[in-house]
Amino acid sequence: MSTTKILDGKETARQIRLELAAEVEKIKARGDKIPHLAAVLVGNDGGSETYVSFKVKDCKEVGFGSTLIRRPDTITESELLQLVAELNDNDEIDGFIVQLPLPNHIDTHKVITAIDPNKDVDGFHPTNVGRMALGLPGFLPATPSGIIELLKRNGIDPSGKHCVIIGRSNIVGSPLSILLSRNAAYANATVTLCHSKTQNMSAITRQADILISALGRPGFVKADMIKEGAVVIDVGTTRVPDSSKISGFALKGDVQYDEVSVKTSAITPVPGGVGPMTRVALLMNTFKAAKL
Amino acid sequence: MSTTKILDGKETARQIRLELAAEVEKIKARGDKIPHLAAVLVGNDGGSETYVSFKVKDCKEVGFGSTLIRRPDTITESELLQLVAELNDNDEIDGFIVQLPLPNHIDTHKVITAIDPNKDVDGFHPTNVGRMALGLPGFLPATPSGIIELLKRNGIDPSGKHCVIIGRSNIVGSPLSILLSRNAAYANATVTLCHSKTQNMSAITRQADILISALGRPGFVKADMIKEGAVVIDVGTTRVPDSSKISGFALKGDVQYDEVSVKTSAITPVPGGVGPMTRVALLMNTFKAAKL
Repeated sequence: MSTTKILDGKETARQIRLELAAEVEKIKARGDKIPHLAAVLVGNDGGSETYVSFKVKDCKEVGFGSTLIRRPDTITESELLQLVAELNDNDEIDGFIVQLPLPNHIDTHKVITAIDPNKDVDGFHPTNVGRMALGLPGFLPATPSGIIELLKRNGIDPSGKHCVIIGRSNIVGSPLSILLSRNAAYANATVTLCHSKTQNMSAITRQADILISALGRPGFVKADMIKEGAVVIDVGTTRVPDSSKISGFALKGDVQYDEVSVKTSAITPVPGGVGPMTRVALLMNTFKAAKL
Repeated sequence: MSTTKILDGKETARQIRLELAAEVEKIKARGDKIPHLAAVLVGNDGGSETYVSFKVKDCKEVGFGSTLIRRPDTITESELLQLVAELNDNDEIDGFIVQLPLPNHIDTHKVITAIDPNKDVDGFHPTNVGRMALGLPGFLPATPSGIIELLKRNGIDPSGKHCVIIGRSNIVGSPLSILLSRNAAYANATVTLCHSKTQNMSAITRQADILISALGRPGFVKADMIKEGAVVIDVGTTRVPDSSKISGFALKGDVQYDEVSVKTSAITPVPGGVGPMTRVALLMNTFKAAKL
């Protein structure tokens, strides 16, 4: 049985926030404009309320400016597009996000592509996705970028390693496969992207030096899917009912932590692993946007 | 020893050109505008001259309009950008390409991003690369799209198969890894992308149900790197000196054809495999552009 290193995303993210706060102090001392993030929240979805309030709170903590713009879920698509255009033109706002999901009567893709790519701190605009794939400067999506930052700050270089990713979503698995494959620092991995159509998945995951699961199925990754000494990154955060919690639910990762962690050399916990890194990645993008 | 199927790109491309020619006849019969491709050729690079002349010839064969625009290699960047802007605005031109490489004093990326994504039939613009990665409609780069068309027309569905790609270039390996992974028809493969930093490459390539080599190193892929019954796609086309040819050179693929083809279930020859499919993919994109 090996001893595994816990990749503490909460602590790593806290460190990064301290560094950002120090940068903000320097900017203030110079009398320059501090970074400012705007978040657009349409309707009253419970999850979205929580996520957006975290984003505003994180900005406050590091000293960024932030603006929360609420609109009722009766807003029309053209009104929302008008708001996006105003934010694009507003020099006070360095970057902004439109919290998803949007109500069904609004074309999400239309809204995202209306955002100025230079203010698209979520990195969801096709131009930013393309820049990423081409190795050009741009905004990286928060979760993949947060994962790479977590590896980097824990001295785990994917270069030459076999990284296996489970799940091909547009916001995690697919962009992460692109990022880890690139010829760049903390990349250069041999990447295999697995998904629902993959056959013999265990035979593939057992080859992984670094296994990243972004499936959203609690307990999917079991000990027999892991090579001894592998690094395991768990992106899954599924709410499962738990009467012992005041909230009535617990967050569960994709990884069967107890049995897997005894085989790994390093592993992320859930919660406190990838989640906090995703949050801080948005701050890092906002800081980058302010420098543009 | 298995009998292998030769994936005849030359013949498949000829079939597609016949189909496109029939479509052009229908368009003419309706009195509508026929598709029109423009190609910008800067300077007198031998390879570029050849490629552009093929593109013009291919257009003629299927009945597309074509315009070859020559500029001396002394053209300034701003003059070239001005030309791109004119082509963007010219309603006669459905799609156009700027033949690469460009002279060193011109910023290639600036020129490519100046092209209207809706006329970017090479599929090199970051917006088209991003659209591809997000599974949105757009122009696909010619070689990856030609390879998938070749598989499709030969009844080889990558769905659920393990595809191993050697080489992560922006125009072949990297976009092909994205395309083959997507949840779409003639995709849905488990994809591993290998490159110069990959360790134990043979151990990975031997797992491939479909192996695609896009490295540009003659004879790199040998029999011991192949699983019995695999499909092998050879994207390499390197000119090697050959005194028996009038031209003084022969085109060599990445694959050691003689020893590999006795193990495969299907294989592309070089020349006559991927090359003709790349050429015809540009025609398919031009046809698509004309319908926009």
